[in-house]
Amino acid sequence: MRPAKLEGEPRAAALASLLAAGWTEAEDRDALIKRFVFRDFSEAFGWMTRVAMVAETLDHHPEWSNVHRAVEVELTTHDAGGVTGLDVEMAAAMDRLAGLA
Amino acid sequence: MRPAKLEGEPRAAALASLLAAGWTEAEDRDALIKRFVFRDFSEAFGWMTRVAMVAETLDHHPEWSNVHRAVEVELTTHDAGGVTGLDVEMAAAMDRLAGLA
Repeated sequence: MRPAKLEGEPRAAALASLLAAGWTEAEDRDALIKRFVFRDFSEAFGWMTRVAMVAETLDHHPEWSNVHRAVEVELTTHDAGGVTGLDVEMAAAMDRLAGLA
Repeated sequence: MRPAKLEGEPRAAALASLLAAGWTEAEDRDALIKRFVFRDFSEAFGWMTRVAMVAETLDHHPEWSNVHRAVEVELTTHDAGGVTGLDVEMAAAMDRLAGLA
């Protein structure tokens, strides 16, 4: 079963640490966004590769764009029409793999 | 030495096969763009990984975004202010690694 869209108090609780860690909520849809900047392309793509393995494990994939050493990420769960626990889990994994958590 | 921006007849000659292979020229700046669609995320990211190695070898990196099994690419050479032989080389490598050339 896919997780449900986070709303209300459970959402606030789930997002608190992410928002404190630099994640923001997209304005045009229900999604979490963050820009990661690394030392160079090699470090950026190495991080993307590790995140890709988590994505396959969770069967939940980020929308992301990479320009040289920067990666912009948007996380949302299409099936649920918004941010779910899967996105929270993926966001935390991204921070952890970037050495930020 | 970085290559020079392609213009005129040499540009037309260099781009002919790429345009025939589905590459187009961006409207808002001098760049080559293409959308690659793979069977799934694993295949898409596997391709990105192989392209990343070419990018490091050439010291020339694509601007690209990935949403599940699709990857949108923009190629331009910032130092030269537009499309150069490096972009042509990278575009051809991307097609080759995608099994399209």
